[in-house]
Amino acid sequence: MACDFKMIHRVDFAHTDMAGIAHFSNYFRYMENTEHAFFRSLGFSIHTRIDGRTYGWPRVHASCDFLQPIRFEEEIEVHLIVRQKRAKSLTYDFVFRRASDPAGTEVARGSLTVVCTEWDAQSGRMRAVDIPEIIARHIEEYPGQVPPASGADQNTQ
Amino acid sequence: MACDFKMIHRVDFAHTDMAGIAHFSNYFRYMENTEHAFFRSLGFSIHTRIDGRTYGWPRVHASCDFLQPIRFEEEIEVHLIVRQKRAKSLTYDFVFRRASDPAGTEVARGSLTVVCTEWDAQSGRMRAVDIPEIIARHIEEYPGQVPPASGADQNTQ
Amino acid sequence: MACDFKMIHRVDFAHTDMAGIAHFSNYFRYMENTEHAFFRSLGFSIHTRIDGRTYGWPRVHASCDFLQPIRFEEEIEVHLIVRQKRAKSLTYDFVFRRASDPAGTEVARGSLTVVCTEWDAQSGRMRAVDIPEIIARHIEEYPGQVPPASGADQNTQ
Amino acid sequence: MACDFKMIHRVDFAHTDMAGIAHFSNYFRYMENTEHAFFRSLGFSIHTRIDGRTYGWPRVHASCDFLQPIRFEEEIEVHLIVRQKRAKSLTYDFVFRRASDPAGTEVARGSLTVVCTEWDAQSGRMRAVDIPEIIARHIEEYPGQVPPASGADQNTQ
Repeated sequence: MACDFKMIHRVDFAHTDMAGIAHFSNYFRYMENTEHAFFRSLGFSIHTRIDGRTYGWPRVHASCDFLQPIRFEEEIEVHLIVRQKRAKSLTYDFVFRRASDPAGTEVARGSLTVVCTEWDAQSGRMRAVDIPEIIARHIEEYPGQVPPASGADQNTQ
Repeated sequence: MACDFKMIHRVDFAHTDMAGIAHFSNYFRYMENTEHAFFRSLGFSIHTRIDGRTYGWPRVHASCDFLQPIRFEEEIEVHLIVRQKRAKSLTYDFVFRRASDPAGTEVARGSLTVVCTEWDAQSGRMRAVDIPEIIARHIEEYPGQVPPASGADQNTQ
Repeated sequence: MACDFKMIHRVDFAHTDMAGIAHFSNYFRYMENTEHAFFRSLGFSIHTRIDGRTYGWPRVHASCDFLQPIRFEEEIEVHLIVRQKRAKSLTYDFVFRRASDPAGTEVARGSLTVVCTEWDAQSGRMRAVDIPEIIARHIEEYPGQVPPASGADQNTQ
Repeated sequence: MACDFKMIHRVDFAHTDMAGIAHFSNYFRYMENTEHAFFRSLGFSIHTRIDGRTYGWPRVHASCDFLQPIRFEEEIEVHLIVRQKRAKSLTYDFVFRRASDPAGTEVARGSLTVVCTEWDAQSGRMRAVDIPEIIARHIEEYPGQVPPASGADQNTQ
């Protein structure tokens, strides 16, 4: 049973904009890529076939607070936390920190809610379904609070 | 004084993903592009020089609820509404509808909060400043409620 | 019978990079979007169903020479020319100019070769096929030379 | 002195399109990201300050041949080869192979030509300059031919 996952992303040149910082739309890709790596860590793909049925996970909600700009070539640790697990959906929180920052200062915090759907290749339509048991049994909600904005307290005695 | 703006975006092929729908990260680009067209409609650029100072508008919050998938080549009307105007920041709401849909069904609703900053080319740093009066006097908050999710009620009686 | 097509693209903020210019990868999207608008101008979609078969046009070659940087909010005219029409493929040349430039100075020149394929939704596989006659009869090769790098000569006499 | 470099890229979900394969524009980002990792491996950043001058490397040519489609979550090895080193520019070739493919079948082959420029933050302008000696002395041309399309010959005898 897993309830969180960490992944480091490097800010690509193509992710920067003329203000010299990572364009905000890329944070949503970092979050999604972290989720997909979380699924791989459990032995699954986010886009998978089980018993002849194709499952996908469209996003129904996404949000992000941008606290500090991040820049080209910086390594950003994105910490995924399973905030809520329901029959047909998952909500993740994401905490962004610079990998090189010993204080663990949060540079962004985001959230995604995704719905398990079965996809019909013929019609191209998706409908919400229960998360397959084979996947659901590997995921649980993160206990307690989201880690604090600074990692400082982790270092106290 | 302007409080809202509409812009139509076509879903590009490169915006679609293997699920056959527009990838959710692009909605944030549609929102931002609508904001930038709103600024142009007022005679400004979002990235501008006034009296020798360079202004930019980094995003501090972004969110979106995805209600219906949108697909390749669909034309999507994005309606920007100035939700809140403060000394140093603006919050917009965005309502997404298919341009071809006479019922005006909402397919997504999002929000951006942006902060006016002065940008120092030398250091590459930004600091929050009051919105220049020459810009601020053209923008006002949208009166009353955000338009309803369906345009149906606009056609009653 | 059509052999060329023009489309104006505005450089989005998200297309810029920290060097303050449009990131080169976006030129390929401008080219593709121009091709798709060319197809729409003929009454087709690039991704279409004809007689129960699904057609797509994967790219087998893409190239671009970048002659002058282009910047945020500039309007760029992309001129598509059908360079070669074969049974199963099309090669386009693309000339980029600033829409505001009366001299018509070329800022980039690119090329795409695309192959007509039938797509099997079941297997997800594509195989090259002859361009359907209903499409092929609307497209012809551009006669003569590609327009010169500068529009200056168009204004002589 | 380095003349080549290898980097593995995973195909992100956001890189796929409705045809179920990686969108061709992303290959150019894989190439560029490989180049930037090559520079980091030499102890440099592609966007760097040396002796108070800011250097950048705008692309003047990019091309790619797409031989086989690549798909979500596949790991793609991109092999950068320094094809040509001139006073002010570098040309790289790139060979793409699936990391999991023992035969080393090429799935794409591309090329970038980049020019060393000094960037003037004040004006936002760039001008071509000689590659700084501190960088140039670490880079040399790849001797002999580009590796063949299939790795088969590497396994003979």
